[in-house]
Amino acid sequence: MNNIKSRILKLAKSDTDRIEKAIEKNLENEKGIVADAAQYIIFSGGKRLRPLLMILSARLCGYKGENDDLFSIIFEYLHTATLLHDDIIDGALIRRKKRVANKVWNTRTAILTGDFLLARSLSVAALMKKSEAISVMAGIMEDMAKGEIEQLNRQRDITLSEEDCIFIIKCKTAVLIEGACKIGAIISDAKQEKTNCIAKYGYNIGMAFQMADDLLDYTSATSVLGKETGTDLKEGKLTLPLIYALNAAEPEDKKKIESIITNKDFNEKNFNILVRLLHKYKGIDYTRNKAEEHIKIAKKALETFEDSDTKEILSLIADYSMLRKS
Amino acid sequence: MNNIKSRILKLAKSDTDRIEKAIEKNLENEKGIVADAAQYIIFSGGKRLRPLLMILSARLCGYKGENDDLFSIIFEYLHTATLLHDDIIDGALIRRKKRVANKVWNTRTAILTGDFLLARSLSVAALMKKSEAISVMAGIMEDMAKGEIEQLNRQRDITLSEEDCIFIIKCKTAVLIEGACKIGAIISDAKQEKTNCIAKYGYNIGMAFQMADDLLDYTSATSVLGKETGTDLKEGKLTLPLIYALNAAEPEDKKKIESIITNKDFNEKNFNILVRLLHKYKGIDYTRNKAEEHIKIAKKALETFEDSDTKEILSLIADYSMLRKS
Repeated sequence: MNNIKSRILKLAKSDTDRIEKAIEKNLENEKGIVADAAQYIIFSGGKRLRPLLMILSARLCGYKGENDDLFSIIFEYLHTATLLHDDIIDGALIRRKKRVANKVWNTRTAILTGDFLLARSLSVAALMKKSEAISVMAGIMEDMAKGEIEQLNRQRDITLSEEDCIFIIKCKTAVLIEGACKIGAIISDAKQEKTNCIAKYGYNIGMAFQMADDLLDYTSATSVLGKETGTDLKEGKLTLPLIYALNAAEPEDKKKIESIITNKDFNEKNFNILVRLLHKYKGIDYTRNKAEEHIKIAKKALETFEDSDTKEILSLIADYSMLRKS
Repeated sequence: MNNIKSRILKLAKSDTDRIEKAIEKNLENEKGIVADAAQYIIFSGGKRLRPLLMILSARLCGYKGENDDLFSIIFEYLHTATLLHDDIIDGALIRRKKRVANKVWNTRTAILTGDFLLARSLSVAALMKKSEAISVMAGIMEDMAKGEIEQLNRQRDITLSEEDCIFIIKCKTAVLIEGACKIGAIISDAKQEKTNCIAKYGYNIGMAFQMADDLLDYTSATSVLGKETGTDLKEGKLTLPLIYALNAAEPEDKKKIESIITNKDFNEKNFNILVRLLHKYKGIDYTRNKAEEHIKIAKKALETFEDSDTKEILSLIADYSMLRKS
């Protein structure tokens, strides 16, 4: 795992450096509380995965321009804006091992910082002068809002189906990563077939990433994860491992699971019982298998492109999406 | 005043009906809490001023297409999204004589509803397929966030200058109205000179509208205004009438004004003293004169266009911006 991660970091170093510089440059003239809050979260150790995927997708599709680094920050801003608003909505306390912005400052500042980053992402997107890219971006923003809305509407709702879980995973995570890859192709004037393939790659690693994330909430230690284990459940979010196990469980165990889900103040003992039941009813295995299927599809979608260093990094990122521990 | 209002309503009736229908159609498939919250605020008696101005501007510039009603809702959504977020930020209780959405539902729902409407406005904007319009929209969103940020940063800050007040008025209100008019010209492929004139009209009535709004907070009765009088001051917002009077006041009166501004829990007696001082030091008159100047510039900007019913409504709206009582 660490081997894959270090290879990705090494191979992508020059691109991630360019992304950092593009963000710094784009924000350098901003002052005041919201600029501080924006920088606090933007420079809090995000992996720059989304901008990196846009840059790599563009290169894979033969991008010849000079603004891929600038355009890539759209996706970091969109991502960060949703994190800011989500942390308020979820009542989260920790993000990337740091206090969330709405606790360091306050809810108002976090809302406005999110709005500012949304606006700035659109300002940068407008520079692409590509209607299709704007449509994609609008679709991403709308789906992301809808995913959050569905999640909020369905808190602690034990009738949530597997299909509902998939919808939430798609909206929360996959559409943004898909969109980053797709826009990489669009700015390169790639043929439709190639655009579709790189979008497919993005969608599928996005699905795998979120599934891995949902698993981590039940399998990781807080010190590694950078936020509390069991956070999803505390926030009333029922994810795939849980829903699968709930549907597969024997009546008595089903009751146990339901009582833990519906109790907002479950303790560590309850949580450990739940994790055991998730293993017993294959909720963990099932989710892991699903994620692995998505990775296979993602890697298959890359086959349409000729071999290159860029393709290799994208393939490594697909592998990494499932292996990561934080 | 009522005469002007009823003439505008009569002349614009077919357009405002089209706007209502376009919004209803655009939202008809949305379900759940956020759709309810969106409809609650969208259909809470807003005047549809911004979409109407876009439609009228397009017509004045010779728009030949069939989607002006659809495109116009962008501006109602943008406006409504900012109202939703602002009401959370300001801790407001009443909007348009109804409880604010974040009290009817909760903060989370209001944030997401705002995000959804922002996203939807971009989805509609993408249909215009005009890069320039997207740039204008991005600029609007960014300025609006910056205006709110500045207002938040400068709460109860008695060093706020007249220039700072003007910046906030511009960002909060004028850029959106300017943008609605400008995009009306852009979708009509108007010549640059006409685009500039209608944008100038929009900017200046936007300035007048906000100044009139700031005045109402000191001069209107709650029952007419639809929200509590003195709300701005309670929220720590120092507006032009106040800043002008503060700078013009004799030392003793200045102290009085400052002590009321800095006291979050001022009572009605304090407020009445303040209003008297605002009159005494011409803060009300000065702001009214400024607003009237903007209206003159707006009407002057219309002169470049041939006379028509459309031009007449725009001219009436300019007059109305200053005369309105709520």
